[in-house]
Amino acid sequence: MSYSFLNDYGEGCHPSILDALSLTNMSQEPGYGEDEYCLLATSMIRKRCNLPNADVHFVSGGTQANQLFISSVLKPYESVIAAVTAHIAVHETGAIEATGHKVCVTETSDGKLTPENVEEVLAAHTDEHMVKPRLVYVSDTTEIGTVYTKSELSALASFCKANGLILFIDGARLAQALTSGANDMSLEEFAAIPDAFYIGGTKNGALMGEAIVINNDSLKKDFRYCMKQRGALLAKGRILGVQFVELFKDNLFFENGKHANECAMRLAKGIREHGYGFLTEPVSNQIFPIFPNALIADLEKRFSFYVWKKCDATHSALRLVTSWATVPEIVDEFISALD
Amino acid sequence: MSYSFLNDYGEGCHPSILDALSLTNMSQEPGYGEDEYCLLATSMIRKRCNLPNADVHFVSGGTQANQLFISSVLKPYESVIAAVTAHIAVHETGAIEATGHKVCVTETSDGKLTPENVEEVLAAHTDEHMVKPRLVYVSDTTEIGTVYTKSELSALASFCKANGLILFIDGARLAQALTSGANDMSLEEFAAIPDAFYIGGTKNGALMGEAIVINNDSLKKDFRYCMKQRGALLAKGRILGVQFVELFKDNLFFENGKHANECAMRLAKGIREHGYGFLTEPVSNQIFPIFPNALIADLEKRFSFYVWKKCDATHSALRLVTSWATVPEIVDEFISALD
Amino acid sequence: MSYSFLNDYGEGCHPSILDALSLTNMSQEPGYGEDEYCLLATSMIRKRCNLPNADVHFVSGGTQANQLFISSVLKPYESVIAAVTAHIAVHETGAIEATGHKVCVTETSDGKLTPENVEEVLAAHTDEHMVKPRLVYVSDTTEIGTVYTKSELSALASFCKANGLILFIDGARLAQALTSGANDMSLEEFAAIPDAFYIGGTKNGALMGEAIVINNDSLKKDFRYCMKQRGALLAKGRILGVQFVELFKDNLFFENGKHANECAMRLAKGIREHGYGFLTEPVSNQIFPIFPNALIADLEKRFSFYVWKKCDATHSALRLVTSWATVPEIVDEFISALD
Amino acid sequence: MSYSFLNDYGEGCHPSILDALSLTNMSQEPGYGEDEYCLLATSMIRKRCNLPNADVHFVSGGTQANQLFISSVLKPYESVIAAVTAHIAVHETGAIEATGHKVCVTETSDGKLTPENVEEVLAAHTDEHMVKPRLVYVSDTTEIGTVYTKSELSALASFCKANGLILFIDGARLAQALTSGANDMSLEEFAAIPDAFYIGGTKNGALMGEAIVINNDSLKKDFRYCMKQRGALLAKGRILGVQFVELFKDNLFFENGKHANECAMRLAKGIREHGYGFLTEPVSNQIFPIFPNALIADLEKRFSFYVWKKCDATHSALRLVTSWATVPEIVDEFISALD
Repeated sequence: MSYSFLNDYGEGCHPSILDALSLTNMSQEPGYGEDEYCLLATSMIRKRCNLPNADVHFVSGGTQANQLFISSVLKPYESVIAAVTAHIAVHETGAIEATGHKVCVTETSDGKLTPENVEEVLAAHTDEHMVKPRLVYVSDTTEIGTVYTKSELSALASFCKANGLILFIDGARLAQALTSGANDMSLEEFAAIPDAFYIGGTKNGALMGEAIVINNDSLKKDFRYCMKQRGALLAKGRILGVQFVELFKDNLFFENGKHANECAMRLAKGIREHGYGFLTEPVSNQIFPIFPNALIADLEKRFSFYVWKKCDATHSALRLVTSWATVPEIVDEFISALD
Repeated sequence: MSYSFLNDYGEGCHPSILDALSLTNMSQEPGYGEDEYCLLATSMIRKRCNLPNADVHFVSGGTQANQLFISSVLKPYESVIAAVTAHIAVHETGAIEATGHKVCVTETSDGKLTPENVEEVLAAHTDEHMVKPRLVYVSDTTEIGTVYTKSELSALASFCKANGLILFIDGARLAQALTSGANDMSLEEFAAIPDAFYIGGTKNGALMGEAIVINNDSLKKDFRYCMKQRGALLAKGRILGVQFVELFKDNLFFENGKHANECAMRLAKGIREHGYGFLTEPVSNQIFPIFPNALIADLEKRFSFYVWKKCDATHSALRLVTSWATVPEIVDEFISALD
Repeated sequence: MSYSFLNDYGEGCHPSILDALSLTNMSQEPGYGEDEYCLLATSMIRKRCNLPNADVHFVSGGTQANQLFISSVLKPYESVIAAVTAHIAVHETGAIEATGHKVCVTETSDGKLTPENVEEVLAAHTDEHMVKPRLVYVSDTTEIGTVYTKSELSALASFCKANGLILFIDGARLAQALTSGANDMSLEEFAAIPDAFYIGGTKNGALMGEAIVINNDSLKKDFRYCMKQRGALLAKGRILGVQFVELFKDNLFFENGKHANECAMRLAKGIREHGYGFLTEPVSNQIFPIFPNALIADLEKRFSFYVWKKCDATHSALRLVTSWATVPEIVDEFISALD
Repeated sequence: MSYSFLNDYGEGCHPSILDALSLTNMSQEPGYGEDEYCLLATSMIRKRCNLPNADVHFVSGGTQANQLFISSVLKPYESVIAAVTAHIAVHETGAIEATGHKVCVTETSDGKLTPENVEEVLAAHTDEHMVKPRLVYVSDTTEIGTVYTKSELSALASFCKANGLILFIDGARLAQALTSGANDMSLEEFAAIPDAFYIGGTKNGALMGEAIVINNDSLKKDFRYCMKQRGALLAKGRILGVQFVELFKDNLFFENGKHANECAMRLAKGIREHGYGFLTEPVSNQIFPIFPNALIADLEKRFSFYVWKKCDATHSALRLVTSWATVPEIVDEFISALD
């Protein structure tokens, strides 16, 4: 059977998380996220983020987190600004539109939104015959593996504040972003920037789970009503709390992200040493090497991955994704297969 | 600490389910419910239900299951018919209305909907100035612990068929219904009746998870699009598949329900032997004994439960809920506390 | 051909309104309600209501007015409280639910909502598993022809204010209410009570048109965006402005309402003098006399009306509706037909 | 006061339409579009279109028509394909998204959609993680004044049919399209092509009103429910029926469109004779001449129009719109002003 570099959610969860679920299994807890584990995880996240007053809510997936938060803060005619490559713009089956809101997209060179991108959308929306842009959505890491710097995110946040816009960051791969070589922020520094963001668990070693962190007081009210209304309030919310406690009680959250990135960098180094280049500079756990098609056909016999894009008649770019679970020895096997 | 009879989702999951999650943890699987465990669970459920062509989809909770299925089959102006006590009518924060559809409610004596109830709603909706009722929603067990008989459900199904209505059954507590003394159907017989239903895992020993079973071919198309759009397609769908395999590979699904009911019947017997009566006849894992308020105050020191309703100046009805995890010895302690 | 007492929108419009449309027809005006007639009508309505800061918006029908205003002020999980007989609860094809909001209904004896009715709904909605009631909807005249007194509406308004609820009044038949013998308010006194209301034109002699008046500053923002988004911003908004100028430049609005009521009272007097009673006391332009079925069959040969309700084996109640256009001589013919 | 070339809805309505409203004013009619005038207009439109079985519904504006039809035929996850310049994509405040559906846009050179444009969008939407394109929306004339040929629309229709897509045409300016020199279709030939379309009244001499024509049987069911639910069923539907009878009983519909186009061609000829060019070839009642900025400043003293686009440092393109009401003598004055 071929080893998969298809994505970072192919395995179950980090063994420590399974252990934690076992250890806490028989305690009787209140339902719907009011259990002691959710409370503890909330407290840990507030502390790690240095956001003592933030509201923290645990949900089961990224599309749910995006849909919930965005629909909870917009008036019916307000819209979202996002990169044309944004997950909400492409790969969530119109989940934002399903709640009544347009996603106004803008082209970017690298999947990262700039104040200029946002300004351009604002300039095109001038009166009540058009939607009113109100929330800026960015992902870190982005959908194509790039990573924001502190100054980039801060500039976006300043622009948003000056223009009455809400800044929301999709952190499905936040651990990979913060442990990337291209990153220059701590979690605490990161957390201070947006109005709200979510911390991804699913793609970082949890069975499932994302922690929505709302920093801006004006966006907090009645969020649990929105969760319940959209089917996001798990009866056994404890299973999300237990997992986030495990991710944050020591450093598992960061270690998982770091492992994923290290495996990617190891892959990238080996690929480069074999003389191959990349579609974009590899900086996180999604990398896009360019190979001859013949080699790709050969690699496909032993490994699974997506062929991302044709580059020319004889070459294509792959997407290789590593994770908390990637086995370094198999990374080496992949590299050897390039010989 | 007081022992909880508050609900049937206080503990984590049945130990066998945790074991199954451990055993399967490191296999690399396709995401979004296309893994081998979901396929296997689907196959098991089809076989148990004798519905070889049914579509089966796994989601993370009951509100999500109801919202998803109902919104996937209705045109914008179509409505749902439900008992005034129905979960979707009261305790899902308007999840159905959030997808654009009215819930037309009707009074019942015991939480169970009859063809007469449905007929009455139909008769009141006569033209395009009113919504058009299109789907009948019932729960088995009902929200107040009652259980349908085969002839009751069959009569509803016949009425629905004759009137172009879809019959959908909320089976959050289907295991408890099918193992109740008041039940006279096998799962196979039950499954043949409605157009669609869901099999509850969360309240029957799973960490979380409900299996939506769509029997009527005309309601199957593109359901996965709806799931993704409403944030219900888990990246690691495997964790739902693994749990339902465990519930159905032997008889854990039924054993869990049976245990919950047996504990409830044991409680009911002891309560009755102490001379107390019930708000409604106890037949499943939710029972509603009537006690003097002084006794209730005493019980509250050792047990947790909801006080459901004042009956007179000195008596109230409790709701006691048992589950797959209820400890029989503590049931006996509760009974002894009535001495 | 039979003369119609079916409703108050059977004819076109008051001749003065047609004249006004003719006189203003060829002036070139800005579109979308920014023309001089809409501005003038706004100014007249503000003055008549003594609400110099109110926002006034003109739309083409009552369902549109209700749907627009209600959906513009509610968060996704918030609901409306209304009488079980309310137009939005029964006769608008789920227009409120179509925007995502539940209508929580309550029984009343006479179609009028009291603080006690509202309190009862509030008491039943206690946490995030249920919708959160936020807006109280009443109609004056009500859907069954009754009329609020100043103290009744004021009591509702006080209760709403004390409980953080928005009070919205559907004035589809506001002219008929304010010119009813059962009314004790001027338009100015009426207008001071709710957070917002609409003044009905369609059922009071306009071709079509309702004027939404928003008094509460916090509910005004960006309403024109909502109008455009729901298809309610007419390109030639002028035709609504012209009509409301005509209704309010002198007293046509009140005269039309008064005429409708006078015809109804004339009918009621004649009916009573013939020895017949009423389902409810006649106070506005909808009256509900009880006649022998044989007489009804006879009347149906010359007049059109709805048979509202069977009263006993041989008697039924009719609904007779009069309007600005009702011909008094035909009212007399109807009465003579009772001889 | 300056004469307006801002749009084609600046005046009220064609005098014949006012006369028709006067003549029919006092007849008592059933409400909600079931009056004799709506029935007659329906019959005339069916005949003119040679679509004897089409359903015809009258609504009050274009955004309403688009929103209503599109939301009535799509499942929640289905999307619309439209040109990036499409009215629904830009100038309807997210009306389509407000009903839950994404608008997938594609670049065009001239505002006209081709099968290649549609194919490109289809190719990018491959599975349930993305919306499912289902309806193709085009406008004739387009939003930038261009006009489809019969072969262009037929090619689109064939492509749609082959790919299970619904073709819907926004005919806000259908009269101007069908009477354009660039058009090669009769109304009958046009009407045979799409699954549904609407015939614009508002921008062609009616007070307001658009006639939605549904040709495809599978898209007809229960449309009046959708109309009522979205506030589009006017109580006095007669006023729409009367206007469309007037437009189609003789040839007023075509004469109005022709007059608008002739005025535009007269303007264009004069402009060209003065040596000025156009942004796009003038073919209907919206034309885009390029003038020196100094001349524009001068023209603005006597005429109103939109400055559409800067062309270079010293030149800009205007948008000049003519209508059924444009006064030819003032067109000549405009041309003289170019001397």
